[in-house]
Amino acid sequence: MSNWKDNIRIVDPYTPGEQPKDKNIIKLNTNENPYPPSPLVEMTIKNFSEDLNRRYPDATADKLISNLAKYHGCDKNQVFAGVGSDDVLGMLFLTFFNSDKPILFPDITYSFYPVWAELFKIPYQTIPLNSSFEINISDYNIPNGGIVIANPNAPTGIYLDKSSVEEIISSNPDSIVIVDEAYIDFAPEGSSCIDLIDKYDNLVVVRTFSKSRSLAGLRVGYALSNPEVIKYLNDVKYSYNSYTLNSLAIEAGSVSIDDEAYFRKTIADIVNTRERFAKELENIGFDVLKSSTNFLFAGNKNINTEDLFNYLKANNIYVRYFKSPRIDNFLRITIGKEEEMERLIEKINEFLTQ
Amino acid sequence: MSNWKDNIRIVDPYTPGEQPKDKNIIKLNTNENPYPPSPLVEMTIKNFSEDLNRRYPDATADKLISNLAKYHGCDKNQVFAGVGSDDVLGMLFLTFFNSDKPILFPDITYSFYPVWAELFKIPYQTIPLNSSFEINISDYNIPNGGIVIANPNAPTGIYLDKSSVEEIISSNPDSIVIVDEAYIDFAPEGSSCIDLIDKYDNLVVVRTFSKSRSLAGLRVGYALSNPEVIKYLNDVKYSYNSYTLNSLAIEAGSVSIDDEAYFRKTIADIVNTRERFAKELENIGFDVLKSSTNFLFAGNKNINTEDLFNYLKANNIYVRYFKSPRIDNFLRITIGKEEEMERLIEKINEFLTQ
Repeated sequence: MSNWKDNIRIVDPYTPGEQPKDKNIIKLNTNENPYPPSPLVEMTIKNFSEDLNRRYPDATADKLISNLAKYHGCDKNQVFAGVGSDDVLGMLFLTFFNSDKPILFPDITYSFYPVWAELFKIPYQTIPLNSSFEINISDYNIPNGGIVIANPNAPTGIYLDKSSVEEIISSNPDSIVIVDEAYIDFAPEGSSCIDLIDKYDNLVVVRTFSKSRSLAGLRVGYALSNPEVIKYLNDVKYSYNSYTLNSLAIEAGSVSIDDEAYFRKTIADIVNTRERFAKELENIGFDVLKSSTNFLFAGNKNINTEDLFNYLKANNIYVRYFKSPRIDNFLRITIGKEEEMERLIEKINEFLTQ
Repeated sequence: MSNWKDNIRIVDPYTPGEQPKDKNIIKLNTNENPYPPSPLVEMTIKNFSEDLNRRYPDATADKLISNLAKYHGCDKNQVFAGVGSDDVLGMLFLTFFNSDKPILFPDITYSFYPVWAELFKIPYQTIPLNSSFEINISDYNIPNGGIVIANPNAPTGIYLDKSSVEEIISSNPDSIVIVDEAYIDFAPEGSSCIDLIDKYDNLVVVRTFSKSRSLAGLRVGYALSNPEVIKYLNDVKYSYNSYTLNSLAIEAGSVSIDDEAYFRKTIADIVNTRERFAKELENIGFDVLKSSTNFLFAGNKNINTEDLFNYLKANNIYVRYFKSPRIDNFLRITIGKEEEMERLIEKINEFLTQ
């Protein structure tokens, strides 16, 4: 055996949801948006100049960054963009979590957090959610090297009220607190912590274009914070890859922000479908956690959840099932189009009555 | 001051070449290809399905990986793709360079190598090129934690013959040897080490679409090795970001491989221009290193090179100047179109006779 094998960083990677290619599958397993991106995106891609492919992209992604700054009413130097929010989060972990003390995040949350911690050899401690799958904010008043809160949380869909998030941030002035707002556009207005970035120098808010902007395939995510945090983050980015976003992502991502009416319309449609579908699931005996996202987390103690998951899959409906402690009798179901959810209810009923 | 600042990874990032937006600038500073990508690329982008933006990309980038495997006559599990070769190289450093012994690379080479080493806290030692800017292969017979050789080298443009590279690989069976072939398509046929990946389990060859395939703006690079190395590399990739390549990069990158005739034609044009331009530079008193790339590294001891660099810039011609020991009287000049090189020679003559 060659000795080079002694020097490998051996890791247990994150498992993304399946991406079946069959167009007949109703795909409710990765929280994609059922509606296409803004028509402006398609137009931009069709009119894309070949010269933008030939040349290196703008390393600063200025067009996208400027537009995001304008959208959120902050300065350009408060915005950092990456290849999806995973790239942004990974880089945040690498840049700011270099303490000997453990970073903290809930036991049930985005399952990529422990994977980044393992990859970069960052000590971490998970903090159990309470029996209602809620965060108990006083649990975070312990020595730590950083905190990560997904709000709304995944896969539960539960939103932690803003004043509670603020208390975690203000109680931990010596730690970077990342608030991962991947799903916040599906929560009630005024839920976001973005307006706190000027108040707390330890706060970083992370967003993605993959859910509310229907652009999972384009890979765009971003972080908002104070200029100092963004500068350190950019230094690490430029030490890894000068040009992370390709020119198409910069151009198409940027114009998608311009179509606010379309954006609000698709979000409202998804929220309406979510509320109707949640009631239907409750009517047939499911416990449905209160969702502020584009998915539902629902369980039924009278059935074998894994069997239901497999039954749906056999019927060309993909949802997500986590065979993990505390949540192995729940399914995470992305909100699709009305007709997709009707078909799903039909098949669940079929399973229940078989 | 907040204590979170004690836990920042503070780095000195790589400085990419300038990307001026003014279309009138003759841009010969970042080794982009002067010719557009294959027309197949444009067609693919124009016909791109919006559904591919809405959904997550194929995390395995199968279409691209399969096409690369076919092109190089290897198996799919011998290919890894990333966001430009920088992403691929960064991930290779993170995955395989975890020894206490220093990794080795030349003192004059791609200036990103020491930046990745600093970022990931990898010890490294630079090995001086000889006075002709060539690699002395016996210098690499010392204890090390890995080796990186750019071949042809940058910014010198000099090619190290394949048997010498093979000797470095075979003399270091306990180290991963990365051969960075970013510019190999501009070298004579048969120069690549790709056909050695089945012979040496410690060899990784890295390639990019940014130079010979005119796709710097799309961000596609790849590595070829044995299935075991590729598996470890993928584990790290999936532990950082499941979906690094966006769907447009997978689709457009993949079709660019199909247009071999166009690919060969543009490379031949660039090589012809390079040889003609090298002679012209020599005729007006420059020392020109023998190039096997799409750029020339040329110096003139009778002039102030930085002054020439600034003179050209003031005349809207951007080339690259490195204010570093041993090479601060050289310019790195990308090979552009014939008319661009003529204009450059004109302006250099103007500088020399002013």
